[in-house]
Amino acid sequence: MNEHLVEPEARPRRPGPTVRTRVTEHTDDLERDREDRLATEEPLEIRLTSPGSPAQRVWVTMRTPGHDFELAAGFCCHEAIAAPTAIKGIAYCTDVDLTPEQEFNVVTVTLDAPADIGHRHTGMSAGSSACGVCGKDSVTAVLDVARSGLVVPRWTGPLPSPAVVRRLPESLREGQAVFSRTGGVHAAGLFTAEGERLLVREDVGRHNAVDKVTGARVMAGLSPAEACLVVSGRAGFELVQKAVAAGIGCLVAVGAPTSLAVSLAREAGLGLFGFTSADRTVRYS
Amino acid sequence: MNEHLVEPEARPRRPGPTVRTRVTEHTDDLERDREDRLATEEPLEIRLTSPGSPAQRVWVTMRTPGHDFELAAGFCCHEAIAAPTAIKGIAYCTDVDLTPEQEFNVVTVTLDAPADIGHRHTGMSAGSSACGVCGKDSVTAVLDVARSGLVVPRWTGPLPSPAVVRRLPESLREGQAVFSRTGGVHAAGLFTAEGERLLVREDVGRHNAVDKVTGARVMAGLSPAEACLVVSGRAGFELVQKAVAAGIGCLVAVGAPTSLAVSLAREAGLGLFGFTSADRTVRYS
Repeated sequence: MNEHLVEPEARPRRPGPTVRTRVTEHTDDLERDREDRLATEEPLEIRLTSPGSPAQRVWVTMRTPGHDFELAAGFCCHEAIAAPTAIKGIAYCTDVDLTPEQEFNVVTVTLDAPADIGHRHTGMSAGSSACGVCGKDSVTAVLDVARSGLVVPRWTGPLPSPAVVRRLPESLREGQAVFSRTGGVHAAGLFTAEGERLLVREDVGRHNAVDKVTGARVMAGLSPAEACLVVSGRAGFELVQKAVAAGIGCLVAVGAPTSLAVSLAREAGLGLFGFTSADRTVRYS
Repeated sequence: MNEHLVEPEARPRRPGPTVRTRVTEHTDDLERDREDRLATEEPLEIRLTSPGSPAQRVWVTMRTPGHDFELAAGFCCHEAIAAPTAIKGIAYCTDVDLTPEQEFNVVTVTLDAPADIGHRHTGMSAGSSACGVCGKDSVTAVLDVARSGLVVPRWTGPLPSPAVVRRLPESLREGQAVFSRTGGVHAAGLFTAEGERLLVREDVGRHNAVDKVTGARVMAGLSPAEACLVVSGRAGFELVQKAVAAGIGCLVAVGAPTSLAVSLAREAGLGLFGFTSADRTVRYS
């Protein structure tokens, strides 16, 4: 791995993934004060800089601290801002005007090629065009970007069987450290066609968890294209868009997919499973 | 109600809240083709126009069609763009350059006072400032806007007891028509202190469901400030922010709150309950 991509260790000033608080629990006729753990939520600002261009803010997201560099790298990959190999460095911002609390909430991604941030406002994100918006346009916009070669080439290996798919949510849950302490975070995990768990990331934002998974692969110098991405919640349009951009073979959701998610998965040739548990799974494309 | 705020009936061109599709269900040794219903997801663009200002796009969100005018009105209220009484009309866009598919995905909100959209980028939304971001800044930004008088005055009546709070998620679920058909949408509902359900709205986006609830009250000429807002998922910072802007007395979530949601609720004096079911609820502020 490029040494400029290594995220520094947690420091005293830097918030961890959970915080403690006092709460009151109410059950039948009982009221009990106790300690609880909450998933940390803090804003993260992502800035981009490329040859000849000063750093510019491209996104602010509410996220769980930790794996911030992965989140930034995955965001750039999913939004087709730059080829994964164009990322030359990621660092926490050291502006003198940042307060200590802000220091670990701003990351700058350095690219060795010009950033292409037009998609963010015209297609990949909201599927909006200059004169109006519709679902069909949103699907077309993602497919156009996919054909442009800016996204990761699609996984062409084997895909998991439905029997393997049904085992994946339980395996994802086993890899969730923060959820078991707080009950309050989403997770995304990368799996092989045989159901082997490669990595899991958690975040209060379900889109952030997927960004971190892709970013972890990009930062390790590996392609994010794998047989299977599993998400702990539902599958909406934006999660399918991220799976397409990362070259994933099939997306497995514990919850329901939306109409537009199914349309995009079918058009893009992405396998899509919903309502997945040990007992059953439903294939939508 | 102002007649310019009435949303037209569904028409043939306009998508409904659910669509049908064919799927394959896999269980132990069984594979079955059947029909399924999906929650519809389509982009909605919100434009604002005010005296002396041409219409400008301020937001694009992926939403479930239906109650679109409420979504737009609630968005304006939650973002403190204008006082609820400043909304003089809401209409689907009739630009000649819109295709038939786009026609019902663009709404224009007409205000009789200048729009204040600065919050959207500086405080109310991402909690970001010009030089950096942190959770404390985000909380302060929301409180500053609240003090400015641009948000709805807080509910000062009675609040529900913990015993009433525990009954609310089941009542919310009983009011969910789309969820029972698709299993794929979030809901938000407004309740009195005695647990009476006043209205429920559903959407693939949990933030949109809350926007629709507030918008429904604003469009009916009523204050959105009520004893209790109930949401079907978790409670993050942005949902607490919306509850504060709408003057809600307490927010009840079925799932977990985040650290920043608890901080904001405590600072703003909003009651916050999480992990709420018939058996228990946990009070965080």
